[in-house]
Formats: sequence, structure tokens, C-alpha cells
Amino acid sequence: MEKVDIDWIPEVSAEIRNKAKKIKVILMDVDGVLTRGDIVYDSNGLEIKHFNAHDGQGIKLARVAGMKVGIISSRESGTIRVRAKELGFHYLYLGKDKKLPAFENLKSETGLHSENFCFIGDDLPDIPVMKEVGLGIAVGNATELTQQNADYITRKGGGEGAVREVVEIILDAQNLLEDAIQNIWKT
Amino acid sequence: MEKVDIDWIPEVSAEIRNKAKKIKVILMDVDGVLTRGDIVYDSNGLEIKHFNAHDGQGIKLARVAGMKVGIISSRESGTIRVRAKELGFHYLYLGKDKKLPAFENLKSETGLHSENFCFIGDDLPDIPVMKEVGLGIAVGNATELTQQNADYITRKGGGEGAVREVVEIILDAQNLLEDAIQNIWKT
Amino acid sequence: MEKVDIDWIPEVSAEIRNKAKKIKVILMDVDGVLTRGDIVYDSNGLEIKHFNAHDGQGIKLARVAGMKVGIISSRESGTIRVRAKELGFHYLYLGKDKKLPAFENLKSETGLHSENFCFIGDDLPDIPVMKEVGLGIAVGNATELTQQNADYITRKGGGEGAVREVVEIILDAQNLLEDAIQNIWKT
Amino acid sequence: MEKVDIDWIPEVSAEIRNKAKKIKVILMDVDGVLTRGDIVYDSNGLEIKHFNAHDGQGIKLARVAGMKVGIISSRESGTIRVRAKELGFHYLYLGKDKKLPAFENLKSETGLHSENFCFIGDDLPDIPVMKEVGLGIAVGNATELTQQNADYITRKGGGEGAVREVVEIILDAQNLLEDAIQNIWKT
Repeated sequence: MEKVDIDWIPEVSAEIRNKAKKIKVILMDVDGVLTRGDIVYDSNGLEIKHFNAHDGQGIKLARVAGMKVGIISSRESGTIRVRAKELGFHYLYLGKDKKLPAFENLKSETGLHSENFCFIGDDLPDIPVMKEVGLGIAVGNATELTQQNADYITRKGGGEGAVREVVEIILDAQNLLEDAIQNIWKT
Repeated sequence: MEKVDIDWIPEVSAEIRNKAKKIKVILMDVDGVLTRGDIVYDSNGLEIKHFNAHDGQGIKLARVAGMKVGIISSRESGTIRVRAKELGFHYLYLGKDKKLPAFENLKSETGLHSENFCFIGDDLPDIPVMKEVGLGIAVGNATELTQQNADYITRKGGGEGAVREVVEIILDAQNLLEDAIQNIWKT
Repeated sequence: MEKVDIDWIPEVSAEIRNKAKKIKVILMDVDGVLTRGDIVYDSNGLEIKHFNAHDGQGIKLARVAGMKVGIISSRESGTIRVRAKELGFHYLYLGKDKKLPAFENLKSETGLHSENFCFIGDDLPDIPVMKEVGLGIAVGNATELTQQNADYITRKGGGEGAVREVVEIILDAQNLLEDAIQNIWKT
Repeated sequence: MEKVDIDWIPEVSAEIRNKAKKIKVILMDVDGVLTRGDIVYDSNGLEIKHFNAHDGQGIKLARVAGMKVGIISSRESGTIRVRAKELGFHYLYLGKDKKLPAFENLKSETGLHSENFCFIGDDLPDIPVMKEVGLGIAVGNATELTQQNADYITRKGGGEGAVREVVEIILDAQNLLEDAIQNIWKT
């Protein structure tokens, strides 16, 4: 197919673009980031989660481009495991009430530096990691304090394409987006 | 009942109307087209899908008017099979990571030409088929690249009446809509 | 408690108010009226429905005021039966592809006249009954043809308080609303 | 971490701030307050509820700050019990058709005065308690009469952060918010 016209990627400052160029791992919270923040139970205590198809395609694009993707969530949840397996997440830290130790663990495990990580969050427990990583991102409907502590706030809300938007910004900054898209079409 | 006043059909260009006149099969993706794009799991991995009643009535209108309707989805899903059976979809291609081969297969099976097909999509994997068919349509909340590659972008979003809107435009272009509506009331 | 200030009731024309004064039975469709129109399945074919708490309170107000309430739906559904029982609906016609015969049946069963019935709908199959009853109402997000055939279009959407709005308009026209509210608080 | 900049807290009148200073117990309804008001059933009658992650973090903040939190709901529901246990609610009154007796019971049990209680509601059955407590709050999408009877109407809707907003206003009025946030990060 013809050349992809990438004019929809949000224009980001040179500073954000520079931070995005160094990212090798995209980390994220789940509730409010990969979902709209709904915590859903049935009367037997079974948990239900609403993920988003565009975000799923974003995770696929990131993987095709060679990015690593991971989750750090304070909740332990079977639904997260189902979705994470389906999308091929590389790192999965669940039931982590404190997210910074999980991040430090991942940093030493991978041998990467803080500047190589992006973290996408929506609320208080995400802020410490957002401030530690190279690129800290708040989703569009994150709580106000979370937004105050972010390098970038997505135009889309959690569970409505925020993760896809971040993937596109990072891949575009690294000139990997067009190839990744062509790859989705070809393979 | 009296004559139906069809003034709500979106005004489309003469070009779109001409393309719509040739359509005999309306094909569509599922997630983000027949649904809002939510991918929903419970903690046992059971999948849940939210379809839309107005779209369902649209599929019924299309069938009453003699159109064929079909699904090409990269996902295999029991919920799609339940809904597709209920609505009487004629063609069902599930678990098709690449949609173009499924479309080529359907074309040769039906003996119809590309110009006789419409495809409604919302994301990257839909674009190759959208560009191949006579009438390629993106739902209102499709990703930007998908919208760029569409002949027409619906006013309604996926899972919120986008498919119904497409059916009404096509039936109206072929002067089949009023009879189909009267038929729903009569039979 | 002090007198209830009923200034939130939508101002309706004298004609609608006169029609509302004669209503003794409030009938309604389910999908798109008592719900947002989502048709939800899990992968085992189990159906899920999202009703609305404000509408539920509206049905309660109607019953406290002596109104009868009923459902005419083309779908047969266990979830409707659960919710209808909980709310105390007096009439329940499910699986009725054609709604007019169900309405005629109810009319002869109750011995009431068409002008004593209100019907709330959102799509094509509702229009024949909406045009037959004394007060035909389309929810705010009904399809356009349904809106064209309504005496009144609610400000709220289906599943988001449309039924409550109709109940309040009818009870207010009959000067029954304040007593019904005081009754909810007292009994 | 550095000092928290609390500029997102809605500006409230001196009167509301004074009422907020005396609150020791935050009480709330469930449907329409901790949820968007959806009453969800599957075809087996199983009930499903959609809570909100930001509200959950708000309840946690309130508890960390030493507030007591409680629920008075007219519904009896297993899903409420699951969520209430997870969030550590101190008081749980379910299946209470009349909420005032439950509130009077709690008042005498705790030995606190009406001015020490806040109640967050969205519809008719909540109004009597809202008018009795020191700080009566309606969520942003409460019914109009409920809003008319509230001391404060939240900017956010039920199930979309209304409870979190109330917690932040109360903790801020009592100068407890910053410590509570730091506490979430530290412990």
C-alpha cells in the first residue's frame, strides 16, 4: 500500500519528543488506563473488565516495532491476566500496592535506565513511578494531581484509546510507526 | 400507514450515492463497529459483547430489502456467533487475522465484483478491505488513519448506530428504504 | 416535609398536557427505552441488560400514584422478567414481533380507550403503537423516524431517565406528583 | 515527595467549608452515587455493578485520614458487600427502604451528632437523610429535586468520581488531605 500519512499524531513539544525517543519499555496501570476506571463485580464477586480494541491494536503496534510493554497494577485480577496474555505483554506486576519497588525490580532485571521507561497512570499510586521514569504520562481523565505530575496528558481517556495515543507518539518519535503499520498489513 | 418521510438520511455526495447504488453485500468488522470497541472479560476469561438495538434493526432492514450481510473479524468469539445467528448474517468469517483473503474468498464464492461490496471498519486491519471494496466506510470514532482511507465516515459511532446509518444510506440510494420500513410494520 | 417545588418538570404544550391528563396506563418498549439500547451477550449466550435506577424510582412513583405500567417488547428475555417483577409492572408482553396486536389485546382486556394509554418507544416497531395511543413518546435518542412520529420527545435518553421524565410529566399533569413524592418519603 | 499543590479542589463557599470541617462520617447511597445508576442483571437474575476506581481511592484517602465511611442503600446486594469489604467501609445498611431510621440508628450507635455526618445521594429516598445531616450532597447527575435539597452538588457524576470529590473537599477543609496523600505514597 501507499505511504502512510501520519498527520493525526498529536503535536508534542520537542522536549516530549526527545524523551519519547529514548523509550524502550512502555509500562502502564490497568484500571483507569487500559479501562475507563470501572470496577465491575457480579453478585458472586466475579470481576469483569472493559478493555478497548484500539488500545489492543496499539499494544500490537508497539510489539511489532520492538517495544516492550508491561503492567504494574495494585490489583490482582484474572481478567488482567487473560487480556495481558492475549496482547502479549512482556512484564506483569499485579497486586503491587507500591509500584516503585516493582519498577526498580524491572529496571535492574532489564538493565535499562529510567529514561528508557514510559509509565501511563491515572491516579495517586501511579505518580511516584510517573516521576521516576523518562516519560510520565497521565490519561486525559486522570485525577488532577496525576495530571499535574505528568510530562504529557493524553487527549483520549483511559479505556478509550489513551494507550494507543501514547504508542503512536513514541513510535512516531522513533520513526518506527509507518513500518509498524505496514507490518500489520503485510504479515 | 402513510408515506415515510425520509429526511433524516445523511446527505451524501453524488459519488457516494453512485457507489451505494451498486452494493449487494454489506460487510463489517465487529469490535468498534457493531460494538463501541470494548473488549470485556470476566475473571474466568468469559467474553462479553455490547451490541446495539438500532444496528440490529438496521441489519433486519437490510435483509428485508434483499441485501446480504456479513462479518469479517480477526477475533473468534462465541458472543459474535450468538448475535450473528440472531440477526441472520449470511456470511461469517471469524478469527481472520488478515481480512483481505477472506474478502477475496467471499468474492469468488458469490461471483460478485468488488463494487458490489461495502465494508465498515474502525481500525488498521480493516483498511485493506475498505480500499478494495466499492464503498469503504469508517465509523465516526474510527482511528484517524482508518477515517483517512474511507469513502464515507458515519455520523454515529461504532456500537451506537453506525451500521444502521450505513444501511439507511444504501437502501435509500437504491430506493429500497421506504418499502423495507413498511415491510417491518406489515409482516 | 415542606411543599415540593416542582419546577424541574419540562414545560410541555397545552396539547401534550391535555393528552397526559387522560393517561391511566404507561406502556413502553425495553431495549433503548428502559436501557440505552445495548444488547449484551456473554460467550455462552447469556443475556445482560442495563436498566436505570432513576427510571426504577419513576415506575415506583407511577404505581404509588395509581398508574398502571406495562411492557411490550419484541424480545423474550429473562432479564426483563427479573427487572419487571422487581418494579411491579402490571402488564408484560414479551416476544411480540408485532406490538399492535398486543396493545389491542390489552385495550380489550382493560376496557380502556386508546386515549388512556401512553407508549414510549425508540425504533420502527414501536411507531404503530405510538400512533395508536393517546400519548406517543419517543426517547431523546430514538431513531429519527420514531421521533417524527411522536407527540413528545424526552430530553433524557433511553436508559438514562427518559421513563422517569415521562412519569413526572404525566403525574404533574394530573396533579398527582407531589403526593406521590410525599408518599415515597412517608410510607 | 515535594509539597502537594491542592489547587484542583473545587472552591466551596465558607458555609460549606464550615459544615465540612465538622464531618466525621461520610455516608452514601450506592446506585447512582457509587455507580452511574445502572441496574444490571443477567438472564439468571445475577446482579452486576459498576463501581469507579477514583472513588475507591477516595474512600481509601478518607480512611487514611481517620474518617469513617458508610453505606445506606435500599437495595440488598452481594456486589455491594464485595465492594464494601474491599474498600473497608465501616457501616453497611442494606435493604433499607427508609433511610432515616438507619441514620438515626447509626447516630445513636456512634454517639455523634447530625452535624458530624455527610450524606451523598442522587434520588428521592436520599433526600430525608440529606436534609438531616450536617452536609447533604447531591451528585452532579442527581434528579432535580435531589439537587434542590442539597447543600452542595458535585461537579462529577455518580460512578464517575463524585464520591472522590466529596472526600477531597472534606479532607481539605480539615487540612487532612495533603497528609493523607503523602501517606498513600509512603506506607
